[in-house]
Amino acid sequence: MSIKAAVVGATGYAGAELVRLLLSHPEVEIAAISSVSFENKPLSEVYPAFLDFTSLVCENQREVVEKSDVVFACLPHGLSEELAEQCAAQDKIFIDLGADFRLENESDYAEWYDGSFTNPELHAGAVYGLPELFRDFIKDKKIIANPGCYPTSVALGLYPALKKGLIDTDGIIIDAKSGVTGAGRGLTLNTHYPECNEAFSPYKVASHRHTPEIEQTLSKAAGRKIKVTFVPHLLPVNRGILSTVYGRIKLGVSAEKVRDAYHFYYENEPFVRILPEGTTANLKNVKYTNLCDISLHIDRRTGTLIVVSAIDNMVKGAAGQAIQNMNILFGLPEEAGLRLIPPSF
Amino acid sequence: MSIKAAVVGATGYAGAELVRLLLSHPEVEIAAISSVSFENKPLSEVYPAFLDFTSLVCENQREVVEKSDVVFACLPHGLSEELAEQCAAQDKIFIDLGADFRLENESDYAEWYDGSFTNPELHAGAVYGLPELFRDFIKDKKIIANPGCYPTSVALGLYPALKKGLIDTDGIIIDAKSGVTGAGRGLTLNTHYPECNEAFSPYKVASHRHTPEIEQTLSKAAGRKIKVTFVPHLLPVNRGILSTVYGRIKLGVSAEKVRDAYHFYYENEPFVRILPEGTTANLKNVKYTNLCDISLHIDRRTGTLIVVSAIDNMVKGAAGQAIQNMNILFGLPEEAGLRLIPPSF
Amino acid sequence: MSIKAAVVGATGYAGAELVRLLLSHPEVEIAAISSVSFENKPLSEVYPAFLDFTSLVCENQREVVEKSDVVFACLPHGLSEELAEQCAAQDKIFIDLGADFRLENESDYAEWYDGSFTNPELHAGAVYGLPELFRDFIKDKKIIANPGCYPTSVALGLYPALKKGLIDTDGIIIDAKSGVTGAGRGLTLNTHYPECNEAFSPYKVASHRHTPEIEQTLSKAAGRKIKVTFVPHLLPVNRGILSTVYGRIKLGVSAEKVRDAYHFYYENEPFVRILPEGTTANLKNVKYTNLCDISLHIDRRTGTLIVVSAIDNMVKGAAGQAIQNMNILFGLPEEAGLRLIPPSF
Amino acid sequence: MSIKAAVVGATGYAGAELVRLLLSHPEVEIAAISSVSFENKPLSEVYPAFLDFTSLVCENQREVVEKSDVVFACLPHGLSEELAEQCAAQDKIFIDLGADFRLENESDYAEWYDGSFTNPELHAGAVYGLPELFRDFIKDKKIIANPGCYPTSVALGLYPALKKGLIDTDGIIIDAKSGVTGAGRGLTLNTHYPECNEAFSPYKVASHRHTPEIEQTLSKAAGRKIKVTFVPHLLPVNRGILSTVYGRIKLGVSAEKVRDAYHFYYENEPFVRILPEGTTANLKNVKYTNLCDISLHIDRRTGTLIVVSAIDNMVKGAAGQAIQNMNILFGLPEEAGLRLIPPSF
Repeated sequence: MSIKAAVVGATGYAGAELVRLLLSHPEVEIAAISSVSFENKPLSEVYPAFLDFTSLVCENQREVVEKSDVVFACLPHGLSEELAEQCAAQDKIFIDLGADFRLENESDYAEWYDGSFTNPELHAGAVYGLPELFRDFIKDKKIIANPGCYPTSVALGLYPALKKGLIDTDGIIIDAKSGVTGAGRGLTLNTHYPECNEAFSPYKVASHRHTPEIEQTLSKAAGRKIKVTFVPHLLPVNRGILSTVYGRIKLGVSAEKVRDAYHFYYENEPFVRILPEGTTANLKNVKYTNLCDISLHIDRRTGTLIVVSAIDNMVKGAAGQAIQNMNILFGLPEEAGLRLIPPSF
Repeated sequence: MSIKAAVVGATGYAGAELVRLLLSHPEVEIAAISSVSFENKPLSEVYPAFLDFTSLVCENQREVVEKSDVVFACLPHGLSEELAEQCAAQDKIFIDLGADFRLENESDYAEWYDGSFTNPELHAGAVYGLPELFRDFIKDKKIIANPGCYPTSVALGLYPALKKGLIDTDGIIIDAKSGVTGAGRGLTLNTHYPECNEAFSPYKVASHRHTPEIEQTLSKAAGRKIKVTFVPHLLPVNRGILSTVYGRIKLGVSAEKVRDAYHFYYENEPFVRILPEGTTANLKNVKYTNLCDISLHIDRRTGTLIVVSAIDNMVKGAAGQAIQNMNILFGLPEEAGLRLIPPSF
Repeated sequence: MSIKAAVVGATGYAGAELVRLLLSHPEVEIAAISSVSFENKPLSEVYPAFLDFTSLVCENQREVVEKSDVVFACLPHGLSEELAEQCAAQDKIFIDLGADFRLENESDYAEWYDGSFTNPELHAGAVYGLPELFRDFIKDKKIIANPGCYPTSVALGLYPALKKGLIDTDGIIIDAKSGVTGAGRGLTLNTHYPECNEAFSPYKVASHRHTPEIEQTLSKAAGRKIKVTFVPHLLPVNRGILSTVYGRIKLGVSAEKVRDAYHFYYENEPFVRILPEGTTANLKNVKYTNLCDISLHIDRRTGTLIVVSAIDNMVKGAAGQAIQNMNILFGLPEEAGLRLIPPSF
Repeated sequence: MSIKAAVVGATGYAGAELVRLLLSHPEVEIAAISSVSFENKPLSEVYPAFLDFTSLVCENQREVVEKSDVVFACLPHGLSEELAEQCAAQDKIFIDLGADFRLENESDYAEWYDGSFTNPELHAGAVYGLPELFRDFIKDKKIIANPGCYPTSVALGLYPALKKGLIDTDGIIIDAKSGVTGAGRGLTLNTHYPECNEAFSPYKVASHRHTPEIEQTLSKAAGRKIKVTFVPHLLPVNRGILSTVYGRIKLGVSAEKVRDAYHFYYENEPFVRILPEGTTANLKNVKYTNLCDISLHIDRRTGTLIVVSAIDNMVKGAAGQAIQNMNILFGLPEEAGLRLIPPSF
């Protein structure tokens, strides 16, 4: 099989990572890429790392849909609906790495993104593509909302605890730290090297747009509406998100019960590793891979479950998970093109 | 005035920083330094940065006490009592940067440090030297327990909220991140550059020895015994501790009330800056200084007060605070030798 | 085909990288690994990144040779001859990532490594395994000396200029910069994070052991004995070597002639990229790959050819090149297991 | 004494560093600062690190001259002449941290900066302010061209060798590496954190504008016109320039003779340290200070003198040296406000 894939917005970080991974995917041929900023430029001029690996040239977005079986979109929010319509009209698969299809309630989208659903029918047909949790709902869909990076790390980290009712549903604290690629390739003072190196601080404290997306998934797990406190921090590394999540453990829940719950849900998941007791998740062990490492800790003195969840924000948090979704939709093994061993150093 | 100071354990990071700051202190003369590992070596051979700034040579610990008015000790825990006795016998001031005199209850010391108080009388005469909170108790003491780095950032960050009863005393979560100098100069795999760079993870989750020290101060603030969840992380920067602290805000407490409380306690403190609304504490703005920057945030959706507190772990978290204590004891202006402007970049 | 490979010294950085790459090689099965420091330990305990990817356990070196068709050795110098003899006796291929077989003249080895050839016959049968330059001599050998990291970057960077006689053979200056993994996993003060981060300096100025190895290859290219000035620097990044090499360009040699020479030698090399005019080699574009990027610059004001050569020290400078050599020896496509696209960020 | 100082262009990195250092200078009062981008904004809003240390507000450039005795200009090239004229008209000292007055020959300025001298008389009255080399010429001048960062490190590193005729005047190679603050605060892709971190490359190879400035000083030292090969590299650290300089040592010149020459010129210089034999200059030992560390190495095998010179590009390479010049002009001790001990870590 050779799937024809297109990447819209190929010159941002998520787009470039997608191209890189797709170029090594055994069943994919990249049919076209597009970029508003670099139209008509070879990708290897925008990213010299691609020299000799691809001669792809950035085209106009209008031209790429018809050339492909699946369209990946890496666009600023607000621009995906139109492209999704185009794909739907031509019966192409649409995998959106942006935020436009992630929130099921238009009111959430309105509140946090200041936008609206112009085509509610499209949204009704979309699915939130976090395979480990919603695999069965993904299979037959044509519009996939690829999850955000923070929400991926948090949802995988908390799902078993909430689904099995091991912690209280209120009072959950999420202290997350992200590498700088998470901020994208756009130039800002915060991501200017001398402002960011040897620095560390939170940002968008309790007001980050990933909050409702996190709450949506956790609420599904818990079977009731959940609100969380979510504080992201900018970490002076290139890649990775590590979320340290705190929940009040319910009376009588043992460490064994907690570990059992996580093993139950992730036993056969190729991309989730429940770390051995006594070890802790570390960004360096998931870098450049589609893995999610989870370590479990209990503070008996205060009755707190502490879950540490680490992913590569560019892979499991974006491009890798998008490919994982594509693999599901095309009936391929989920690991196709994604069996990447982390380099440790 | 010229105070004669000695630094015991001068070749570790805290000791070297103390020497560096004392060399620029207008009222201090360093009378002697000692080091077990580098006895008889010039400090400028151990740290070439000192070349031309000092000809101090590491002596044996026994020789330094009598030469000085004040002895700073930068020793592994368990070694300070003997030195404190020696200082007491000769009526010298003893400022301990280690942990031996920080905990008031021997049972806490036994539980967390696996040690005991061999001379309880010494402990009774010691004081916990966090000037902003306990200045009045420090003045007439001869043995000062200089606070730990994490406890300094947390105590300054939470004191007003607890003292004024603005948050619940249970359920406090402390997610702290420390630069690598906090681990000292001793070689370990965790602090080997390629293992630590582009990496990030928590360590000693809910089991770090600074926990009882944090609880001791917070309990004083609250007027009742408090337990906290404390999770430190190793941050790939040289310097700094940033603690993100979460507490449940009490019903009816407004943002203004919170800000007022912090301004009330720190209005006239030269080293504490309550940041303007809408800004967040950042390590880069306190590096190489004795400052503690605090930003205040409220998550109304979940009723959570979020306090972000940033210090330089080597200065306010160790050497700088020790000098601040010395200044108090010798009747100097508290800022003497410590009016350091952070370099931003 | 399934080649049975063994890695001796698998827990150092070069060994671990070799295991990582071999695990993804389509024609290789790792038959055994050994480690003196971690005998009987699973590799995934030493490097948690390997969790779920391999259950290999470190064995004793004695046991690994007979299980395998090819033995890779990642040992401190002085320990390879004995293992090479063992391999020779059992007719196994021996690929040495250490220095013992790199120098052809025993006198050089004696001068720079303070050692001797105990079995000169073995050395006579060995070959210096830099495929782009010596491919034809490698094919039928059983003992391969895998080149050092600095020498690889320099030899590839200067070979065409010297072979074609474009620069003077004396006065060559090599200013090289290496990431910290080049120093290995052993703990030293120089590689302790706070000593190495935000620092930069040369080391072993004009006295590094890679000097004679560099000169050996360059002398072959030039057809006469060459001496170079070689100054390595420690660079605060994990991976990569960038060598900036300076030579006096001969009268009348045009920029076109220089570019032509490089294209002539590397036209069909899958791992060498001669960068387009106006661009410069950068570590980030070769990280985690077997590539060598070369940019060419001429300073007409002073008559100097400046060649900038960048590799990943762990891949093209160690493990990747070793696999490239294995591929040659076993008649596989040279890119087998090594078609890695650099991640840019 | 209280010198009234103004900083024009106070919100760039050099300007901000100047303000920081001047605020701690015992004999200076900052009378005014200006900034085109942040007019009417408090400096502590642009750089929160200044909070509580200064209430200075950025004014319009026109207003600052008359308020001050000395005007420091941190402007892009081409903008200083007009300001210098204004200062001259009001008999104020003008210290220019930009490039406009550094080159004595207008033809060099025309060739490298594509500009011209609109007021040649002003240039005739200006002096190149490298105190260690030209102190006597600085004293009575009113317009000081503060040297560039690279030229400072190179000139201090090579002056004694050239002045004493220890090396050939041709064939000098300068391989320099600069921290990212050297590129300023302006946003560029090259200085965007994920593009710059874990990366390394040269830039403006043999075409950097500091080349003629370097050659101007070295030519003075040698007493004849010198051309050099100068290749700068971007180093992933915040601060510092380390230049590794190569020259052919003349026949019969001993290591002692070399060391003697350097000690002769720098014996009494408070800011230049000739490092002990066997040690090498390292950025970390000069960070945040006005020091220049120089280590001397001879490669006898090739007859090469290797000088390694390290400075903090923001201090000795910009703001610190400007203050050193001011101290000279106002008859203060040269170290006033600059006795800064490097922090090592």
